[in-house]
Amino acid sequence: MTEQGTFIVIEGLEGAGKSTAIAVVDQYLKQRFPEREIVHTREPGGTPLAEEIRAIWKQPREEAMAPMTELLMVYACRAQLVESVIKPALARGAIVVGDRHDLSSKAYQGGGRGLAEPVARLSALTLGDFAPDLTLYLDIDPAVGLARARARGELDRIEQEALAFFQRARATYQAEAAADPRIVTIDAGQSLEQVHQSLINALDAGL
Amino acid sequence: MTEQGTFIVIEGLEGAGKSTAIAVVDQYLKQRFPEREIVHTREPGGTPLAEEIRAIWKQPREEAMAPMTELLMVYACRAQLVESVIKPALARGAIVVGDRHDLSSKAYQGGGRGLAEPVARLSALTLGDFAPDLTLYLDIDPAVGLARARARGELDRIEQEALAFFQRARATYQAEAAADPRIVTIDAGQSLEQVHQSLINALDAGL
Repeated sequence: MTEQGTFIVIEGLEGAGKSTAIAVVDQYLKQRFPEREIVHTREPGGTPLAEEIRAIWKQPREEAMAPMTELLMVYACRAQLVESVIKPALARGAIVVGDRHDLSSKAYQGGGRGLAEPVARLSALTLGDFAPDLTLYLDIDPAVGLARARARGELDRIEQEALAFFQRARATYQAEAAADPRIVTIDAGQSLEQVHQSLINALDAGL
Repeated sequence: MTEQGTFIVIEGLEGAGKSTAIAVVDQYLKQRFPEREIVHTREPGGTPLAEEIRAIWKQPREEAMAPMTELLMVYACRAQLVESVIKPALARGAIVVGDRHDLSSKAYQGGGRGLAEPVARLSALTLGDFAPDLTLYLDIDPAVGLARARARGELDRIEQEALAFFQRARATYQAEAAADPRIVTIDAGQSLEQVHQSLINALDAGL
């Protein structure tokens, strides 16, 4: 429990099935906690201001984005979302379901781009000891996940990265999950039915 | 000298006369160093990407911007400008004339908003030991400066701040100038002619 509410985060690489998992979690929460407010967020973004920054951040462009610029933009979005949406919702006693949170920065910018130290410093500066109560990490082979993401349509700037980038991101996800009992790993390479059941089991055990 | 080039920054509160000072510096440099490339930058902004972030940052809006969000956006702009414009220009041997740089963050966000510690941490993270060779700080009473800025037209989000905010920013400018011999204070309350001469004297002595 963070403050009075509960903060649940869904994490994973592109094509891991986050959207489906979020729908499963939403349905589960509505059935088990029919009285509680449920707030959905996505990162980076989730407020009008943060979505504007996200749009700039996502857009492919001629000008090479410096790695530190990318990192600072992501944390600008996160600071805004946490202060203006997540913390107030938790203070009201809501359950917040996050489509990505700080662990994505550790995986993508920290692991993927080799910026683990600046990510750790920015995370500490921006969030202090604020952290999700439960993170459901959907673990997928990047080659499988990217093939699914490609099948959905055009790739954005992040999804155009080389496979090795996503392999480094996955390794970081796995290492973080191994080190933090509040992160539950779901094998996203299973059948949809099995993934669904794994999510239910994790929610039963973790809430 | 930073790398092969020279980085000169003009700093000061709204209405201190930065634009006029930049024109004086530009004319001086063209006369004294006719062979050298001169690059003008402004912060936050100065690249297409950073200008997009600046536009979001400057716009008055319903959604309250968290102080940390503002800070991270400013440093995202600065990281981008330094990496993609300033450092390459200095490496070519250019003279870069900056309309604001890191000292503005120390004054406005550090002093004005009371975020001195996060500013110091972000500055160290983003810039390391990169710093201007010469900063010309135009010192003005905020009441005088703001009256000048108001006479120019509509105030943006920053300029709508209370006078006390600018008084704290000025105190920080003055303290930083007292501590760093590379920052030269120009009394911007003097006549235009006297300010002009003070700028020339500072450039003669500092370059």
